[in-house]
Amino acid sequence: MPMEALIERIVREGQGIGRGVLKVDSFLNHQIDVALMDEIGRELAGRFAGHSVTKILTVESSGIPVACAVSRAMGYLPVVFAKKAAPNTMVEGVYSTDVKSFTKETVSTIRVSRKYLQPTDRILIIDDFLAYGESAMGLTRLVKNAGAAVAGIGVVIEKQFQGGSGKLKEAGYLVESLAVIRSITDGNIEFI
Amino acid sequence: MPMEALIERIVREGQGIGRGVLKVDSFLNHQIDVALMDEIGRELAGRFAGHSVTKILTVESSGIPVACAVSRAMGYLPVVFAKKAAPNTMVEGVYSTDVKSFTKETVSTIRVSRKYLQPTDRILIIDDFLAYGESAMGLTRLVKNAGAAVAGIGVVIEKQFQGGSGKLKEAGYLVESLAVIRSITDGNIEFI
Repeated sequence: MPMEALIERIVREGQGIGRGVLKVDSFLNHQIDVALMDEIGRELAGRFAGHSVTKILTVESSGIPVACAVSRAMGYLPVVFAKKAAPNTMVEGVYSTDVKSFTKETVSTIRVSRKYLQPTDRILIIDDFLAYGESAMGLTRLVKNAGAAVAGIGVVIEKQFQGGSGKLKEAGYLVESLAVIRSITDGNIEFI
Repeated sequence: MPMEALIERIVREGQGIGRGVLKVDSFLNHQIDVALMDEIGRELAGRFAGHSVTKILTVESSGIPVACAVSRAMGYLPVVFAKKAAPNTMVEGVYSTDVKSFTKETVSTIRVSRKYLQPTDRILIIDDFLAYGESAMGLTRLVKNAGAAVAGIGVVIEKQFQGGSGKLKEAGYLVESLAVIRSITDGNIEFI
């Protein structure tokens, strides 16, 4: 079920660009509306209540404020964000996997320290966007590498026409999206 | 005045590495303790109350959860995070400046869309760490380029021995840090 306040916001401020890019820089990807994040956090938390989530996993950067808002609404579960670069303070063992970006036409390696994913964990994967599903699939691989379980995948905006949600559901994952976009054509955004 | 709960946490979980690196991956830079973030947010908000802040500016990635927590404690002020890479959806005019990282020995360009910094803004700059001050100085340059005012600079952890806070205060900025570290030697962290 879509989140009305979010859809209204996308309609008002979102910009469709080229072949399938949605720009929501005014509240999600560059400027952040923290009040809206808190509503989004409560909404996503509600969808995964009863799934025995122990930890929230996202990827830098735009997933972080969403993941923190979900954590707050789920009793302050720990958040872990996968890193895209290998910082000099990340020296111990890591789980890593390569993730392709269709929009940027790049491949990046995402990493999580082994100590922050345990076999007993039930991980809720959170992200801002679900497009081709490469990022979310990459995060599920990190969880599997740790021997942990994926409790589900929650995203703010799903671009259904790019196939990621279908791929994740086929792989057996529970996917929840607060706004589902059917198409972006000539700047026109059509929701489901 | 230092924030006791934060200092206790650094003492318990922080790791001094090499010549001046502090690793706090378990609650700030990789795994995030959102409850602690909220306390940090309230503490930093209190230090800048009465400074007529209109917007919070940080830089991706670890500054984002801190900035969002401060926003929540200041009546949901908008947060803007400067980006380190030029994404394909950031096409319009930007303010940009180069920032050196002493620890990573790299120079990166940080960018903010012009439309999210207005001449009427009074900007509170928020970051996780203040070391040599390169990142914070870079953010002040972006604010100045926009003709906006810097209301102050608030950071979670200041490594005073690396000189950034001194430099920023000399330039006339109000700097508030919740934990101030005098030295890191052979893994031993000494606080002020």
